[in-house]
Amino acid sequence: MLSDLLKEPQSIKNWSPGHHSVSLPLGIKECLIRMAVGWFYLSVMALCSLGSMCILSTIYWMRYWQGGFAWDGTLLMFNWHPVLMVTGMVVFYSAASLVYRLPQSWVGPKLPWKFGHAAMHLLAFILTVLGLHAVFDFHNHRKIPNLYSLHSWLGITTVFLFACQWFLGFAVFLLPWASVRLRSLLKPIHVFFGAAILSLAIASVISGINEKLFFSLKNGTNSYPSLPSEAVFANCSGMLVVVFGLLVLYILLASSWKRPEPGMQAERQVWGFGLPFQVGVGPGLGKSHPVKTWALPGRPTQ
Amino acid sequence: MLSDLLKEPQSIKNWSPGHHSVSLPLGIKECLIRMAVGWFYLSVMALCSLGSMCILSTIYWMRYWQGGFAWDGTLLMFNWHPVLMVTGMVVFYSAASLVYRLPQSWVGPKLPWKFGHAAMHLLAFILTVLGLHAVFDFHNHRKIPNLYSLHSWLGITTVFLFACQWFLGFAVFLLPWASVRLRSLLKPIHVFFGAAILSLAIASVISGINEKLFFSLKNGTNSYPSLPSEAVFANCSGMLVVVFGLLVLYILLASSWKRPEPGMQAERQVWGFGLPFQVGVGPGLGKSHPVKTWALPGRPTQ
Repeated sequence: MLSDLLKEPQSIKNWSPGHHSVSLPLGIKECLIRMAVGWFYLSVMALCSLGSMCILSTIYWMRYWQGGFAWDGTLLMFNWHPVLMVTGMVVFYSAASLVYRLPQSWVGPKLPWKFGHAAMHLLAFILTVLGLHAVFDFHNHRKIPNLYSLHSWLGITTVFLFACQWFLGFAVFLLPWASVRLRSLLKPIHVFFGAAILSLAIASVISGINEKLFFSLKNGTNSYPSLPSEAVFANCSGMLVVVFGLLVLYILLASSWKRPEPGMQAERQVWGFGLPFQVGVGPGLGKSHPVKTWALPGRPTQ
Repeated sequence: MLSDLLKEPQSIKNWSPGHHSVSLPLGIKECLIRMAVGWFYLSVMALCSLGSMCILSTIYWMRYWQGGFAWDGTLLMFNWHPVLMVTGMVVFYSAASLVYRLPQSWVGPKLPWKFGHAAMHLLAFILTVLGLHAVFDFHNHRKIPNLYSLHSWLGITTVFLFACQWFLGFAVFLLPWASVRLRSLLKPIHVFFGAAILSLAIASVISGINEKLFFSLKNGTNSYPSLPSEAVFANCSGMLVVVFGLLVLYILLASSWKRPEPGMQAERQVWGFGLPFQVGVGPGLGKSHPVKTWALPGRPTQ
């Protein structure tokens, strides 16, 4: 845990200024680490709040303007579709993807975190499948063709990629048969597709909200171009999903809150307000291998 | 240039098997480098073909099914909007973003490539602004409100972020006043937002094509749900933009075709068919600094 670093003198001792860093006195380093811990938990709180707001605003839109929910093949069954897709494919998917960014996951055995990562993604996938079931059932009930719009083409492709990603991830990273070399080869691809699937999910959500508003707001006085309150609210919900997704992608790809791989130099850069510095992440990891540059997180050894 | 590596014995001599790599005889290394060069140019060809297909298919859609082009405030003026946005915000933007992935840019002074990067982005921005002008003029001519749909909200946000990114990039990375430290701090953010803006542009394109098809295909026999040939063609064009965007993002974020930063160990991993190996990229760069792990490309020194 990041805050444990403050209690472990060794982690401060291991603190190694890198090529571009400036060597600082111990007190200032400790102060910077405390700032970074605070900054991390602030980001986690922002993410949780934004994610909850994405789900709640979709529920509110469907409940207040679209008549609420049912599971009977009517339009009220369709209303589950946006709620379950935003909850499953965006918010839960993001939470599952960010498991390895939690400081708690940086130390100790990796296997329990892998199980957590897989289980949370499975939950996200189940919610997604329920969301698809809601819209297919509604279409079938109303004799509306399935999978004709670009939104649906992109959405179903995203869910298909998610399924492939989950099964491949399970087979390669959780089951014990795969070699370290195979895992090393596939990890950057797994991480890239993880982020790509989230981006495609966000594009699907945006096109879906847009489509739904053109369907719903057709009356002259209440048309979409006249921007009634429902349109403003739903547009804002869509933009909220975009902001949430960008923050998740930033933490996933650009921040350095990453689990250090054993055998790699245990340095990580922590970002305060434009304040990069590095902390050692505990004893026993500080071997002096030259670490390779990686665009996506490094190679697994478990 | 990557192929120059084959002519320079030094680069082969510098070839340094990394932590996970296997030391191979010189002949096999050379063969692997040749494969990697071939693989790189194959990817460039695939990108150029896909990008051209994205532009040409949008032109064909507008020309064949939507009546062609004009610059007179009518629906024919609107037809420039999708063509210019796909060309500017997706294809030219991607080409400009990938400038530093060209092996030619890996050696020699960086400044000319920076100018190229900025100039190409400026061209992409001008096309984008023309694309916006086309739709605003059409709306004003027809007395249709501007900026009401979620597509337009996301699109205008993306263009605004693009403008901020260009001006900040120009001010910090091209003008000489900024310190190396400031550039180091801002570069990962610049790279992240570069990729994020492309993702948002793709989401805008998808929601835009979807919206346009719901507007155009309303007649019973030629409705969107009945998937007439126009709908299939435009949906496929949208999916092509997605495939193009994913390939660009992969090369931008996950591949190792990156300009090595002076002072950092001149190793890069080159991907053949699941065949990672490392090549030294010329003399004078192979200092033995431990290289830090970076999620996004490393720190600038120019």
